[in-house]
Order: sequence, then structure tokens, then C-alpha cells
Amino acid sequence: MSKVVVQSIGLSLDGFAAGTDQSLENPLGVLGPELMEWFFPTKTFIEQHGGEGGETGIDDGFAAESMSGKGAWILGRNMFGPVRGPWPDDEWKGWWGGEPPYHVPTFVLTHHAREPIEMKGGTTFHFVTDGIHSALQQARAAAGYKDIRIGGGAATIRQFLEAGLIDEMHLALRPVILGRGEPLFAGLDLRELGYQVGKMVPGERAVHMFITRIS
Amino acid sequence: MSKVVVQSIGLSLDGFAAGTDQSLENPLGVLGPELMEWFFPTKTFIEQHGGEGGETGIDDGFAAESMSGKGAWILGRNMFGPVRGPWPDDEWKGWWGGEPPYHVPTFVLTHHAREPIEMKGGTTFHFVTDGIHSALQQARAAAGYKDIRIGGGAATIRQFLEAGLIDEMHLALRPVILGRGEPLFAGLDLRELGYQVGKMVPGERAVHMFITRIS
Repeated sequence: MSKVVVQSIGLSLDGFAAGTDQSLENPLGVLGPELMEWFFPTKTFIEQHGGEGGETGIDDGFAAESMSGKGAWILGRNMFGPVRGPWPDDEWKGWWGGEPPYHVPTFVLTHHAREPIEMKGGTTFHFVTDGIHSALQQARAAAGYKDIRIGGGAATIRQFLEAGLIDEMHLALRPVILGRGEPLFAGLDLRELGYQVGKMVPGERAVHMFITRIS
Repeated sequence: MSKVVVQSIGLSLDGFAAGTDQSLENPLGVLGPELMEWFFPTKTFIEQHGGEGGETGIDDGFAAESMSGKGAWILGRNMFGPVRGPWPDDEWKGWWGGEPPYHVPTFVLTHHAREPIEMKGGTTFHFVTDGIHSALQQARAAAGYKDIRIGGGAATIRQFLEAGLIDEMHLALRPVILGRGEPLFAGLDLRELGYQVGKMVPGERAVHMFITRIS
């Protein structure tokens, strides 16, 4: 059966899933790239960006798994771009250039309506203005029996967690201290929400934590 | 030179270093023992409690290191006991029975004066009523060239971190979600305070994170 999953989210030891002050220059926020330095050297990431080579191993294995087999993605507005408020025009089409790495219908949460954008390689961005439940319903319809990945960012994942909508979550815990940023868990009682850590797998540059829902 | 260290602090994936509602029945707070389930099976812990056997390995190696070579310890009031407010009498002498595992002068932070207590095996509890700097000064005088360990709990470690007094910190990150408890880092900008993760070592039941101060 189709599951709703979170995968490959880099987390700092002090609990942040992104840096502060996201902008065009800092898509992951200030210092945010330190959270993904387990992902950048992988074969999966490098090939996704048209390069060759890259490392294989444990980190790469989980990276590859997280990028494949999805029937739909859901992204928060900030994960789609740095533009805030009403769309000034149709120019911004995501951080990823002409061919985003999703290759399936991708639902972007926003308060501001916009026509769908068909990109190269199978990704179509659909803009959802009526909340996470609606986004999930549309994603389910698009995904069929395949899994739906909530891509992020932190605020979006928190919304889905609070609503009890996430079945599995894979975090890549990094040996870094960010000091400030977007907290992933602060103020959420994940245990009461039914989540537990199923397994922990040390990788090359991160420890992979797999969280499941009990009930 | 003598260093001020924190060691063997169990930390949940969601950032808690102890459970809630500490009491006589729950010295580590509700669910708190889950944070130390890497420590309990070790040879170090079992022998410390008069038993035999126990596991050796990575977790045990760090456990042993954390219990040896100290010149003095500093403990928060709650790590010493569940009694709050003025001492009703001299009955409470710590969680550890007649022979505590410290074996050196041990300074207990409290707002309520009390005479020192000499225990079996070299531990003497000294009660310090004038704050962390005074406790550290007394601990330094007692420790000589040996290291001083800040034993905990979370609130005490946070005070020392904020004051920039901790040189090294070893955390045992556990694959558990506590949901609620005593946060170790919330609201502290450890990066601005000069701390970074020096190394990460996966153990049997925890990932060991070693934090150092840059400046």
C-alpha cells in the first residue's frame, strides 16, 4: 500500500533541519549545506546533477532509495523557492533548473494560486492553496500504489507530523552543531503522536535514523 | 592541564537528556532510563554496582573512560537527589548507597547549605550555595591536574555551557524518541558559544558524539 514518507532529511545534533535566513543565495538557509554534506558526495546526488562518479556506500544507498519509486512529492513553498507572498510572475520554476529531480507530479503548498508548470523529465508542479490534507488527497490520486514523499522543509514536515499523516521518516543525523535554524521536533511530542525509532544505521557522514509509527 | 568535561550523557533523537517528573522512583525522570540503555549493559556499569560480567566494546570503552581519572565532580541538586527546597534532615545521601561511584570530592549545587558528607570509597559530597563559578573554583582546587566532570543534570550542564566553562562534551545519542523531558540544547546557540562536533563514533547502542570548543 502507498505510504507517506519523509526521507533524507539532514538533521544537526542540536535539532535543526535547515539554517536561518533562506534566500536565493542560501536555499538551505545559512549553514544549511552542512546538514546535507552526507548527500552531496554521493553518486546519487552527483548523477542527478549531470555529473559522473561520486561515492557509493551506505549514505549513497539511502540517498538512492529516497529518490526512487515515488508516485508523487509534496513540497512546502520555501522548498520550492525563495519567493514569498503572491507570485510576482511565472518566472520562478523551482531551484532545480529545467529538469527537477522528481519526475512525477509534485504538489507545492502555497497560499497563492498559480497554474501548473510542466517541466522536463516528468515533473509537473501543482500549486495547492487549500492545505495539507488537500495536497495529500491530490498526491494520493496521482501516486496510485506508489509512495508519496513529503520533501520538506521543516515547517511542512512538522505540519504533517502533527496531523499524524506520516508513516515513515528517515533522518540523516549529522555530526554538526548549527546553533540556530529551523527546528524539526521542538514543541512536538512525537512519542505521543505514536512515533518511535525503528533502526539506526551508521553511514559514512551521517547516522541514519528510521522512524516509524506504532499505531 | 585540567579540563572541564561532560561525559556519557544520554541524549534522545528529539533532544532530551532526561525524562520529566523526576522522583525517588524515577531518578532519571519518566522514560529517562531509555537514554542510558547503552550504559546499563556495560561491564563498567555492572561492576560499579557490584555485579560481574557485562558487555565490553565501544560503548563500554567510553563508559569506562567517563568514570575514571577525574579529580572532582560537580552535580546539580537534582542529580544528587529528589529532595527539593531546604534539607529536612541529613538522611538523604545521594542515589548511590554507601559507596558512590565518584571516589573523589564531589560538589553539589544547591541553594540550601549543608555540612559535607564523607562516604565510603573516597567520595565526599560538598554543598555549594554560591553558584557554578564557586563550585568550579572549589573543584579545581580539589582536582589538581586532573579533569573535572560536570555530572549533570541537563539544567546544570546548560548553565556551564552558557558560561563557556565546558571544554569537552561526550554525548551518547540514543535511537529513541522521548517526546518530552529535559532539553539539553533548546534555546542555546552552541555554535556561537564556540562548540563544534569533533568526532562521531557509532557504538553498540548509541552513537557517541564528541564536542569540543574552538576558542
